[in-house]
Parts: sequence; C-alpha cells; structure tokens
Amino acid sequence: MKSIEEFIHLVQEEISQYNFPKQPEGLYDPLDYFLKIGGKRLRPVLTLLGADLFGGDIQKALKPAVGIELFHNFTLVHDDIMDDAPLRRGQSTVHEKWNLNTAILSGDVLFVDAFEKVSDVDEQYLKDVIHVFVKTAREVCEGQQKDMDFESETVVSEKDYIKMIQFKTSVLLGCALQIGAIISGADQSDAEHLYQFGLSLGTSFQIKDDYLDAFGDPEKFGKQVGGDIISNKKTILLIKALELASVSQKAKLLELLGESNLVLKVESVKRLYNETGATDYALNQMETYYQESISHLDQINATSKSKQLLYGFADWLKNRDI
Amino acid sequence: MKSIEEFIHLVQEEISQYNFPKQPEGLYDPLDYFLKIGGKRLRPVLTLLGADLFGGDIQKALKPAVGIELFHNFTLVHDDIMDDAPLRRGQSTVHEKWNLNTAILSGDVLFVDAFEKVSDVDEQYLKDVIHVFVKTAREVCEGQQKDMDFESETVVSEKDYIKMIQFKTSVLLGCALQIGAIISGADQSDAEHLYQFGLSLGTSFQIKDDYLDAFGDPEKFGKQVGGDIISNKKTILLIKALELASVSQKAKLLELLGESNLVLKVESVKRLYNETGATDYALNQMETYYQESISHLDQINATSKSKQLLYGFADWLKNRDI
Repeated sequence: MKSIEEFIHLVQEEISQYNFPKQPEGLYDPLDYFLKIGGKRLRPVLTLLGADLFGGDIQKALKPAVGIELFHNFTLVHDDIMDDAPLRRGQSTVHEKWNLNTAILSGDVLFVDAFEKVSDVDEQYLKDVIHVFVKTAREVCEGQQKDMDFESETVVSEKDYIKMIQFKTSVLLGCALQIGAIISGADQSDAEHLYQFGLSLGTSFQIKDDYLDAFGDPEKFGKQVGGDIISNKKTILLIKALELASVSQKAKLLELLGESNLVLKVESVKRLYNETGATDYALNQMETYYQESISHLDQINATSKSKQLLYGFADWLKNRDI
Repeated sequence: MKSIEEFIHLVQEEISQYNFPKQPEGLYDPLDYFLKIGGKRLRPVLTLLGADLFGGDIQKALKPAVGIELFHNFTLVHDDIMDDAPLRRGQSTVHEKWNLNTAILSGDVLFVDAFEKVSDVDEQYLKDVIHVFVKTAREVCEGQQKDMDFESETVVSEKDYIKMIQFKTSVLLGCALQIGAIISGADQSDAEHLYQFGLSLGTSFQIKDDYLDAFGDPEKFGKQVGGDIISNKKTILLIKALELASVSQKAKLLELLGESNLVLKVESVKRLYNETGATDYALNQMETYYQESISHLDQINATSKSKQLLYGFADWLKNRDI
C-alpha cells in the first residue's frame, strides 16, 4: 500500500518532467517559471487517491492528474491578473514578471495543455472524464466571477457565499477525485460519492481558511493574519457576524470597516466575531461539512482498508493549522 | 444536395439558438453580445462541408461546428485585449464595453464551452477529434504569440511569416474540415488531405488579405485600404519587398516607414511593392497555395459530385474582392 507522501512524490516527479515546447519562448518560458513556483499539489494527489481507492493503475492516473494541476495553474495565472496580485507564493506573478498579454496568452495555452492531459485516458472513460472536467471548469470560472461580483455587493448571503467558495475551489477537488475513480472503473454511484466527499471536504477546508485568516497562529500561518479583516473581505465570519449581530453590534461592525488603526480594527472585529457567535458558527459549519464528507466516504463500496488513505487525508486537512 | 447557403443558414440558426446560462450575468452577457456581432461563420460551415463530403449526418456535425465557432470567438475576445482593439466588426470589443477582467474570464468560459461542444461527437470518434482540436488550439495560441513577437523584430523571414499566418488562421480552417470528416467516418488519409486542403486554402486566403489591404477596391473592402502600410505591418508584401529591393529601393522603403504624409506613404509604398516584384510574388504565392489546396482535394477518395461544394467554396474564397 502506498502512502500519501509517495503519491506526492510521484506527482512532483511527473510535473518536474513535464516539458513545455521550447518555442515560442515568450509563450512557454512563463509557464516553466510558474509551474516551478510549486504549491501543495493537492489536486493531482487526489486523482491518484481516487484511482488507488478502486485499484486503478497509478501510472495511468498520473496523466489526468497532471492535467488537473495544469488547469489549476491556468486559473491562478488568470486570477492573478484579475486580482491585480503582484506575488504568488512569494514569487512574482506572470503578468508582473512579464506583462498582461503574456499572462493572458500563456494562460490560454496552459488551459489547452490541461485539456490534453486530462483527456489522456482510456477511450472507454473519455466521455465521462470530459463531462466532469468541462462542468467543473465552467463552475470554476463562475466562482471567480461571483467572487469578483461580491466585492461590489453590499450584502452577500451565506448561501451565495458557500456556493461561491464551492465553485471557486471545492468542485475541482471533487473533480480530481472523481476522474481518478472513473478511469479506474468505479461505478457511477461510488464515483459520485467520491466527488461529494471532495466537494464537502473542500468546503470545510475553505471555511477553515477564513477562520485561520482571522484566528490562526501568526507564526504558522503563511499569510498575514487578519488580512481578510483589513481588506473587508466578505468571509463567512463577516457575513454571519452581520447577520447575527444586535443593532448596536452591527453599527459597531460597520463602523469598524472604515477604521484606519489596523491593529485596533483586527482585534475589535475578531472580538465581535466571537461575541456575535459568528466564530462558533463558522467552526460548526466547518465540522458539519467535514462530517458530510466523511459520510460520503463511508457510503463508498470499498474496503475500510482501501479508504484509509482518504480518511487520513481528510483528517490531515481538518487538523492543519497552516 | 445541399448548397453552401443552406449550410450557412443551418449554422446561423444553430448559433442563434445557442444559449449561455443566465447567471452570473457579468460572465455570460458579454458572450451573448459578442456572439451576436456575427461574422462570416466560415469555420462551422467548413465542418458541415467536411461531414457532407463523406455522407455524414449534418445534424451531428452541427455540434462540433458550433464548438469550432465558439473557439474562434474565444480567441477574438482575448486577441482584442492583446491588440488593444476598440472595435470588432464596427462594434465595441468586450474589454471596451465591459472591462479587462470580464474579457479575460468570459473568454475563458467561452473556451470551456468550445471544448464541450467540440467533444459532443460519437464516442468512437472522440479521441481523434480531441487530438486534432487540442493540437490546433495550441498552434493558434502560438500563432498569436509569433504575431506579437514580430512587432518588435526588425527582420521577419518569409518562412516564419507563413508559419505565423498558418498557425494563427489556416490551421483552424483545416481542423474544422477534418473534424467534419472524422465524425463522418472518413479514413485517415482522406481526413488528412481535407485538413491540408483547408490549411493551404487558408494560407492563400491570408495572403490575399495582405494583398487586398494594399490593393483592394476601397468601395468594396471593409477596412481602410492601406491600413497595413500605415501601421508598418510586416505583411508578405513588406517582407518580400525588403528582400527583393535594390539597395536604393530598400533605403527608400525604410525611409517611407517613417513618412508622416499617409496618402503619400501608401501610394509610394504600393509603387515600391510593384517595382520590386513583391506584388507579383504575393499573387503568385496566393495562386500556388490555392493550387496546392485543390491538389489535396483532388486526392480525396470521393466522387467529383460530392466534392463540388468544396471546389465551389475554394473558388469563391479565391475570387472574393472583399
């Protein structure tokens, strides 16, 4: 039996061997650069885990796994333009290091490569794989659009927020797992449960991200703690705090959005998150989505032993504090 | 037997019935708008012609045909950003009417839709269709990159120029035809000849475009005649004129690139194109590629009668003066 570490290693190796064409260098050099910036490679590992669960051939799973990772990187290159982000994991983004046109076009061709690799599966599974991938790719674009729309909306409902984070992030985790299952001959119901496992786990993960951004340990958390509060980002904490707040708490919270003393702002908003019950609510939702994901995993027709890696993965993701 | 007009009508109808989702409107409204701007719909008609040649089901061919047109429109939305173009067929471009982020993301989701429609073919042909489409999509991106690269290069060879226009435009014509052939059960050699027919015909068409931009009838030609000369665009005429020019002609030509009297510039450059032999060379190349395309069509195993529409199409494209 393989370990998650081995799967990570396999994925890293496959990606490090991935060669873009040499010409035109203006198109491909930025992609070589961007892919080397790295990342957790969570998504391709999920494809391998999905394949492993149903006894699939890991070597065959590596191709669509890399395709999923290329797709993820394509969305990052374009999102970085839209979010006007100068840095990605501490390195210059493509539009910063090169320029806007390069980031657009290199992103486009990366999407082509993603589609090619995702399609590199046995013919009998191709139609199903493309169906899941296309649906997911569309949702990821819609999620990014909603995320941008939210910036200019005064009120965002919790339901819309959850849908946004699911589209922007969780569906691709579900898709990565499901494609691993499909190409390993899993039946439709099992593949669907595995997708739902990924979707719910991803949602739990995103809520935890919101929580850690406010309450994480500054020594462990990679980003600036309180960054979401400073930028008035409509996280589940802010959305729920505004909803649960008393009249006076709400007035205070709205006033704090304009507070220029940032240390005071972060501390005061966090206190209000706790006092309104928003923090507890978020932690509770995180647990609910986690349990939902486990329940889907439980329902899959496979031995407990073969599910071990996925239970372990869910547990690791749940307990991360970074 | 169907006529080209009937195929155009079928394509127009299918595209007019194509519905993007209603939400998020910030993502899909621009696509509704852009698709309605119209265009010649050459590419999807070619897919139908490719299918028709091998007795394929035209209704089935309409889906990938629309996919090809969606892909073409995706490239236009992104190219318009990169070329900083305010207008497309007299209408505002997406990044002008909305904004940069909208044009990037709406373009991306249009690419997703293109993949979905192109993949909507009988399972037995799916792998081959995706292979051709992915290869072509990559080449189209590379063509756009080369086109942008050429702007800052002092010398562009004729060979590189031909490759650029082929990647940027002709390969998609070949791909459109070949996909029509593949899904209609054409054998590999016939499908390949049909691709080459489209590639060569498209190359002839692009060279004619360069010619008409300088020498077209201002009353018929849609764009400003002489636009390429004014902007010093490295067309086959300019590339070849610089290559064929005597020392004094070359000095004159290079001097004219900086001429601020635009009427004088256009007239003088055209005269030099004629005097150096560049005009004749371009017309000759146009004819050579046209003959090459016809020779590929000749070699396809199908009755002359069934090829009639494609001969007619080639002839129409050759004789257009608009």
